[in-house]
Amino acid sequence: HHPSSDDADDSGGRWQRFTQPDQQPEGDGRERACCPACGAIHYQNPLCVVGTLPVWDTPAGPQVLLCKRAIEPRHGLWTLPGGFLELGETTAAGAARETDEEAGAQIELGPLYTLLNVVKVGQVHFFYRARLLSPVFNPGPESLEARLFAEHEVPWEEIAFRTSRVTVERFFEDYRAGRPMSLYAADIA
Amino acid sequence: HHPSSDDADDSGGRWQRFTQPDQQPEGDGRERACCPACGAIHYQNPLCVVGTLPVWDTPAGPQVLLCKRAIEPRHGLWTLPGGFLELGETTAAGAARETDEEAGAQIELGPLYTLLNVVKVGQVHFFYRARLLSPVFNPGPESLEARLFAEHEVPWEEIAFRTSRVTVERFFEDYRAGRPMSLYAADIA
Repeated sequence: HHPSSDDADDSGGRWQRFTQPDQQPEGDGRERACCPACGAIHYQNPLCVVGTLPVWDTPAGPQVLLCKRAIEPRHGLWTLPGGFLELGETTAAGAARETDEEAGAQIELGPLYTLLNVVKVGQVHFFYRARLLSPVFNPGPESLEARLFAEHEVPWEEIAFRTSRVTVERFFEDYRAGRPMSLYAADIA
Repeated sequence: HHPSSDDADDSGGRWQRFTQPDQQPEGDGRERACCPACGAIHYQNPLCVVGTLPVWDTPAGPQVLLCKRAIEPRHGLWTLPGGFLELGETTAAGAARETDEEAGAQIELGPLYTLLNVVKVGQVHFFYRARLLSPVFNPGPESLEARLFAEHEVPWEEIAFRTSRVTVERFFEDYRAGRPMSLYAADIA
């Protein structure tokens, strides 16, 4: 799945029974939320979102894979495959898993390409380059459609998340400039 | 603070009142832990640990700043300054904050240098290069001491965490080889 970049509380209400961060545990420099029922401290820290920039090379230039979201938020808008990193997997493994789950795409994973801090929602987004091994996809239940876009076909006004847009923009800029595609680290305001 | 890399449950018992992940929320592909008292779902995801590799240049070669831990785990062992990323800050800002808190060091932050997945403990470690602006430090309560080490002085057998050791090793290797210091991404088994 892919979280909203606009939703300041990305928990989807998971923690609605917790109080606001207003209690300072011993030895901790910050106030934390606690569960009023069981007293557990609810440590909230930024989450990692991992995904790929899957590219299919054609004689006319590269095409990128985008998925049309079948779920909220941003139902019907397009995004790179991505979602929350889970326990038990590396950032690279998580990115590959999300690409399989959301697009059913066959890829060879490449290096980390963009590392984007989205402070407003407490997320760090990692996008890996990926070489598509086939132009045939099998989107999962979170995607209405998965398809390839040449640069002039990208639906820029219908991209669900800024981190996807920045990553796709950067890719076509690097490609056009003939630049080596090195890591791009930036903060999304 | 800086978490243990050996402690599979890094929560320090925070979540001991939660059950094991054995309930699958609707629409979720994984089992999650729930609080038996309040019913809240306890989503557990990997945490980001952010720190720096602070370097002081001398005519005899570079020296790196290490902090001697005043807290468990690994009390008395040496580590690069680092700790958990908090909400409201970028990975770079968190790395700078931890460097100030643990070493009281004045730095100019550089680019991301190592990105290390520590799957066993559910952590992703980010170390940024940093140029020390002064060789005088003011370690905080989590550090017994903060000092500079030339390569031959590094207490390799007394480094608290593998991600610190890998980062310091890589730095001196790059320096000796005269290599440009580009991002090193690796998985810590």
